[in-house]
Amino acid sequence: MTLDCPTPHHEDEFVLLGHGAGGRLTAELLDRLVLPALDAGSGPLEDAALLPGRPDLVISTDSFVVSPLFFPGGDIGSLAVHGTINDLAMRGAWPLALSVSLIVEEGLSLTELRAVMESLGKAAQEAGVPVVTGDTKVVGRGAADRLFVNTTGIGERHELLRPSAALARPDDVVLLSGPIGLHGTTVLSTRENLGFATDIASDSRPLHRLVRSLAPLGEAVHVLRDPTRGGLAAALNEIARDSRVAVEIEESAVPVPQPVASACDLLGLDPLVVANEGCLVAFVAPEAAEPALAALRSRPEGESAVRIGQVLPDGPSGRVTLRTLVGAHRIVDMPLGEQLPRIC
Amino acid sequence: MTLDCPTPHHEDEFVLLGHGAGGRLTAELLDRLVLPALDAGSGPLEDAALLPGRPDLVISTDSFVVSPLFFPGGDIGSLAVHGTINDLAMRGAWPLALSVSLIVEEGLSLTELRAVMESLGKAAQEAGVPVVTGDTKVVGRGAADRLFVNTTGIGERHELLRPSAALARPDDVVLLSGPIGLHGTTVLSTRENLGFATDIASDSRPLHRLVRSLAPLGEAVHVLRDPTRGGLAAALNEIARDSRVAVEIEESAVPVPQPVASACDLLGLDPLVVANEGCLVAFVAPEAAEPALAALRSRPEGESAVRIGQVLPDGPSGRVTLRTLVGAHRIVDMPLGEQLPRIC
Repeated sequence: MTLDCPTPHHEDEFVLLGHGAGGRLTAELLDRLVLPALDAGSGPLEDAALLPGRPDLVISTDSFVVSPLFFPGGDIGSLAVHGTINDLAMRGAWPLALSVSLIVEEGLSLTELRAVMESLGKAAQEAGVPVVTGDTKVVGRGAADRLFVNTTGIGERHELLRPSAALARPDDVVLLSGPIGLHGTTVLSTRENLGFATDIASDSRPLHRLVRSLAPLGEAVHVLRDPTRGGLAAALNEIARDSRVAVEIEESAVPVPQPVASACDLLGLDPLVVANEGCLVAFVAPEAAEPALAALRSRPEGESAVRIGQVLPDGPSGRVTLRTLVGAHRIVDMPLGEQLPRIC
Repeated sequence: MTLDCPTPHHEDEFVLLGHGAGGRLTAELLDRLVLPALDAGSGPLEDAALLPGRPDLVISTDSFVVSPLFFPGGDIGSLAVHGTINDLAMRGAWPLALSVSLIVEEGLSLTELRAVMESLGKAAQEAGVPVVTGDTKVVGRGAADRLFVNTTGIGERHELLRPSAALARPDDVVLLSGPIGLHGTTVLSTRENLGFATDIASDSRPLHRLVRSLAPLGEAVHVLRDPTRGGLAAALNEIARDSRVAVEIEESAVPVPQPVASACDLLGLDPLVVANEGCLVAFVAPEAAEPALAALRSRPEGESAVRIGQVLPDGPSGRVTLRTLVGAHRIVDMPLGEQLPRIC
């Protein structure tokens, strides 16, 4: 029997850190390698997929590799619960159940593992979502970095909500439920010991109740997206691409907390590309903008919700622009993807 | 803000390789740490869980960390598809959809990644199960060993099949669908370059069609289990424990291929504890034993199905015994779990 073990043809064809960062490199890897192999359709890549034959149910999966495991405002356990709940919520779904799968490095202390699992259990309980099944693998020292956590979730769609990244329309209003940049800068500051960790904390939290508050607006809610890897810049670019519209946002309207701005200055980062774990972007029909804003602000996790921009009536398909404080325009590119590894 | 980062209290409280091997250490880790943290019930641990409020649907998750990535008879991609399909099948379910989540080490060749993904896609297609959603994370060199793959599956239960590890009954007949030990010895031989890899191949394959062939027998099919980590010994011990029965198997009836026996001799392994990825154990009511055997043998993946034992009418709860070729009895213990790391 021969062993079908391939050898690389080109020295430069190797996976790069940026392939996992949620930007252009990730999109390329998916488009050129993963999706063709899976014979997947060419539709928009959503945060969660509809279950075949069960259009009321959605499924979403995420593997969490954040480093360090514990950071101000959360840890890999609570993050894994919130992240998957939020991916379900972005398809207009209420979470029904989660699975949890662990890959543990030999030698991790049981105290730390217990702390992660208790945080995970508490996050699930507070969100009202049961963990119904799981798996645990252990690999030798050096074969993994401490602990990786996969969560997969099943959700049931709200009857009237049918958001999709492909449904943005000209004149839609773009809403943002809270300030940006907290999660990414917090994890990076903690990992690199930059000292910001005393001022900021991750915004990691579940958004399913916030999405439920939008449910009465039904199909006027065109797009929901949580700007995680690649930040607001990646989320808006994906929506503009999948909906074939042009999006313009106002720099002055995007809430960037002062410690985030300071950290980004020091690190040479644009807050627009920094990962968030507790806010969402909504594209809604113009007449639904005010009720949607009121609905978001009615919940604690949406109390800082603001209008940040609009879909241009006839701009170039796929383009995202920022109107700066002085009235100039600049293109908001899809981030390439190398900036912030292991943020989630 | 203080950082809730725990420090271990006891020097000896660390995760061991054996905690992930599917034996007693795994059970201890689950019982003492994972399940209490998740506030999970004390019911039997099944291969797949029922979805709350949707008793016709089951969900199962598995992270695959097999090393090497490619081995005779399969690779991490096909294994990840078969493994999760089989876990669903053991709850009497037909797979509806899979999610796939990758953790890739920086520097893995795209050629190898493509080969894994193509194998995964082919396995899913041959099984008739769509991959509907996924996730890709990349971690730095040394933070993972090449590639880990999580698959989570949703399945729909056959109307009449309701197997559970807790449903074995006195006088049940124990059936085995094929020879044991092939997967574990193949992976180990390949990894350690032992030279057996020319004689044997993994039995990795999907068992959902085999289970479907049992569906007409309905509730006479009490238990289905695929003896993966921990092998037949772990599977039978779990069933005996969860059903509170005594199980006896005949050594002469358990099919062990000659190359598996040779490899186990050399490695000092008991074939009963070696992982399988393409056979199942069925506990069926006595009157259903012959039709069940005929149904299993009607499919290529069950053509070597045999009767290997029975549930004793009144043996001690939780005990598994082997009747040897000379008529003696020996206890088949739950394996401790340190023998075969990273087999799946």
